[in-house]
Amino acid sequence: MAAYCGESIPAYAGVVDLVTLDDIRAAADRISDGIVRTPLVPCLWADPARPLWVKPETLQPIGAFKIRGALNAISRLGEDERRRGVVSYSSGNHAQAVAYAAARAGITAHIVMPASTPQIKIDNTRAHGAEVVLCGEGEREKVAYQIIAERGAVLVPPFDHPDIIAGQGTLGLEIAHDLPDVEVVLVPVSGGGLASGVASAVTALVPNAKVIGVEPELASDTKESLRTGSLVDWPVEKRNRTIADGLRSQPSELTFAHLKARVHDVITVSEDEIRSAMAVLARKARLIAEPSGAVSVAAYLFHAAELPAGLTVAVVSGGNLDPALLSDVLDRSLDEED
Amino acid sequence: MAAYCGESIPAYAGVVDLVTLDDIRAAADRISDGIVRTPLVPCLWADPARPLWVKPETLQPIGAFKIRGALNAISRLGEDERRRGVVSYSSGNHAQAVAYAAARAGITAHIVMPASTPQIKIDNTRAHGAEVVLCGEGEREKVAYQIIAERGAVLVPPFDHPDIIAGQGTLGLEIAHDLPDVEVVLVPVSGGGLASGVASAVTALVPNAKVIGVEPELASDTKESLRTGSLVDWPVEKRNRTIADGLRSQPSELTFAHLKARVHDVITVSEDEIRSAMAVLARKARLIAEPSGAVSVAAYLFHAAELPAGLTVAVVSGGNLDPALLSDVLDRSLDEED
Repeated sequence: MAAYCGESIPAYAGVVDLVTLDDIRAAADRISDGIVRTPLVPCLWADPARPLWVKPETLQPIGAFKIRGALNAISRLGEDERRRGVVSYSSGNHAQAVAYAAARAGITAHIVMPASTPQIKIDNTRAHGAEVVLCGEGEREKVAYQIIAERGAVLVPPFDHPDIIAGQGTLGLEIAHDLPDVEVVLVPVSGGGLASGVASAVTALVPNAKVIGVEPELASDTKESLRTGSLVDWPVEKRNRTIADGLRSQPSELTFAHLKARVHDVITVSEDEIRSAMAVLARKARLIAEPSGAVSVAAYLFHAAELPAGLTVAVVSGGNLDPALLSDVLDRSLDEED
Repeated sequence: MAAYCGESIPAYAGVVDLVTLDDIRAAADRISDGIVRTPLVPCLWADPARPLWVKPETLQPIGAFKIRGALNAISRLGEDERRRGVVSYSSGNHAQAVAYAAARAGITAHIVMPASTPQIKIDNTRAHGAEVVLCGEGEREKVAYQIIAERGAVLVPPFDHPDIIAGQGTLGLEIAHDLPDVEVVLVPVSGGGLASGVASAVTALVPNAKVIGVEPELASDTKESLRTGSLVDWPVEKRNRTIADGLRSQPSELTFAHLKARVHDVITVSEDEIRSAMAVLARKARLIAEPSGAVSVAAYLFHAAELPAGLTVAVVSGGNLDPALLSDVLDRSLDEED
């Protein structure tokens, strides 16, 4: 139970146990009924010298990969924990994922969100059967811990736990299975749960493949952390500048240890490149990606010189965005073409 | 070879051999390397009393299901036929499919298109390695038959052949495999190759399931044909009124025999319903569908009273559309929401 109480995994003398291939395989067995087995979609429009496939996690039940980690974490709860329910503080895809996974498991989920959260996200979370607890700005953690204290509810963190990392890693198993010769995997980085899991699976199964994280320039704390060798802390106002609202978190000690050990490099992309990649995905791959989900394709399209050559997979991690933003991106891309 | 020379299959005394489950299974074996194994995507936003999954054929290499039939037909060619190459007359998804399938097989494809075809479609077809032969309006068949006469090239028809029907039917195998309790399958109808194949597979494997064709009201010749019991002929100007440019063909004797025997009913949808379904698919399922691909979801959304209850799959058959139309549909749906 303490496992989900939100503390970082203790890093004894700097040593952190990394998630193993077996952990990820076990996660895959647990979650297979609840996820969509997303295919690799070949991109005929890509550079023939660097064949590209996209992995459209936009097709998952809640529209993003987060469902994988949430299902795995919740499936690991004991009977007593299930009775007490789970809690999460997020207004993003993780909230939807926890709400959905809890409903599937027949347990109560409390999702703590700032009262300023767009109504559509509140409604969507309630539609999955979760109890939404609204709070003041900056009070989410406090309110979540009150619920934990009062009810004994179990916190499901967005990335800082081995079960979350292993769950997200199932996506990497699928890549390695579907394209055993994969050479480059591009994956968005925020808190680092997805990149940690994918890199753990892919590097174990395809030792020559390089997993490369992609960040917005405006929230490139991870690139700086990897360069300096230890976690830097960017103020939230700085990270919040990017349009990629799902990529404004920072790695924890646990995910950073995975990234250092298993991710080959981190590439950064501009806001314009993110918007262009969204338009390309819509028009050429017929996929609707949110900004955070499009950064991998932005790296492919605009940063070829920084990338290894070879068979490339870009993880399109999610597709939840404001319809007005989607319209805007598509309208602009039309204007540019005129 | 005559098999692909564009004549209808002889219907001796009104008896037509229908495609069998074994034909479709054999097709699936032949084409599995060339297609995306599309998943069923659960639609959490659908009516809980009629759970909905969509089958996103928009993810196929050329953005539409047509790749299945074209790959199957071309894989059946003999060595001599392969040397002579294939020919097709289409400006739509079938042209792309034949071009792509021929290139994969390493054979020459001639695609005959009217000179008025939008440049983007000509470019896309050439990009797949096909030789595009431009001709005058209404001369496509004549020019295609010249190529057949001169080169001995083999015609790959868009729907009027058992190998095409069996190829499209592989999509039905996948539905029955992924959702063995499926009760309703909604599938667009034009020439009827897709509906014939899907109905053949689904009704063989899930005898209680009902496969229902969907047509635009403005091109509902098939509904009329099924009601009257024999093929009617709508003038092309009449059928061309619909925005669903992929649904302006009419069944042949061969596909009509399949539809009569294996399709439960045909539902028609309005142009507004098609546009609304495109917007819903983009905003809620994160999928970009062309008008022809969205009719199945339009039927689900707006014609519940005409449909059987139960677990429903809607085939979203393709996603190739003018970017300006996509922008327009999304902008309008925003306006309606305001």
